[in-house]
Amino acid sequence: MRVVVPFGTRDPKTRLDPVLSADERMAFARVMLKDVLAALGATPAKPEVLATADFDLEDVPVTVDDRPLTDAVNALLAVASDPVAVVMADLPLATPTALTRLLETPGDVVLAPGRAGGTNALVTRHPDFRTDYHDTSYLDHLDRAHDLGASVRVVDSYRLSTDVDEPDDLLEVLIHGEGDAATWLRDHGVRIDRSGPRADVVRER
Amino acid sequence: MRVVVPFGTRDPKTRLDPVLSADERMAFARVMLKDVLAALGATPAKPEVLATADFDLEDVPVTVDDRPLTDAVNALLAVASDPVAVVMADLPLATPTALTRLLETPGDVVLAPGRAGGTNALVTRHPDFRTDYHDTSYLDHLDRAHDLGASVRVVDSYRLSTDVDEPDDLLEVLIHGEGDAATWLRDHGVRIDRSGPRADVVRER
Repeated sequence: MRVVVPFGTRDPKTRLDPVLSADERMAFARVMLKDVLAALGATPAKPEVLATADFDLEDVPVTVDDRPLTDAVNALLAVASDPVAVVMADLPLATPTALTRLLETPGDVVLAPGRAGGTNALVTRHPDFRTDYHDTSYLDHLDRAHDLGASVRVVDSYRLSTDVDEPDDLLEVLIHGEGDAATWLRDHGVRIDRSGPRADVVRER
Repeated sequence: MRVVVPFGTRDPKTRLDPVLSADERMAFARVMLKDVLAALGATPAKPEVLATADFDLEDVPVTVDDRPLTDAVNALLAVASDPVAVVMADLPLATPTALTRLLETPGDVVLAPGRAGGTNALVTRHPDFRTDYHDTSYLDHLDRAHDLGASVRVVDSYRLSTDVDEPDDLLEVLIHGEGDAATWLRDHGVRIDRSGPRADVVRER
């Protein structure tokens, strides 16, 4: 199975702007990507990166396609002859165990939902399935699979459901992260504030 | 194994106030409770409810303890001789499959985390384990298990991680709910608004 990790190289994770500078957001996005690749590397999968521009990455092949995410992934699906998995790069809680559940779940289309209707990871074994990552992609992907008569299975994983877009998501990384992203946050002064009625993320500068 | 579902009968789910009236919040909290009980009822477990005040509930025994959640649960754990599971009442995405994973995971202490450091469900097979549901209970529960030398396992479930406290959480129920809570929301005009760049919850009145 091909396992593709899309990665946008330009101004990533803008919604983390209240906590991280532009340079830091880029660095943190790359650390999250490496966590995802390391977790995939501990499964039988050989991940590859689909990036909007070329950049250095040891040991993992990078294909460049500067089109929007949906178009770039679908171009790859259109010429793929094997099953393909697409795993987002902003899933720093992904573990080999969670990813193995994704990759080994049978079904023409396997979806790992994110919050708010996102699709954080998927596997397609159907030649005509195409992605649509706009808006509530999870519902769109269900619809498309249904239209194709493709069987659908859903992977119930908190770890795969946790993509990192907003400052609140950093709390999840600090609490549950086992990879370099959690360490990177701590090294940059991002901490859990447990003094209030609910836990919050704070940055010490 | 005893399976206990705590339920607060007084003014529940106040953070849903922007979307639901006080009476509606009470009704919706009971629908969510019934979804959790129905999902548990489809497993070998025989659930019981631990409520802050008596109320009518068919087919499920209700124990009343008007103390705060942590105290009421710990009073029960202190006299329990068997393993005990504690499953929150606001998990309307819980399915028999997800709950079976919780109940069948081995370990002295089994935790199903919620977002922001919550503990949405747990199993204790250690006689001295006690809960602390304040603040980041997940971290506290890890610490307590560690202090006891108890083995800990974590159940990686998006469905169990999704407790319903805030309007955004209703989006998860509308997208992924398979029980009466999703139907109740739709019947009360709570819908997904897919017109903006991100999906949102709206109420039609």
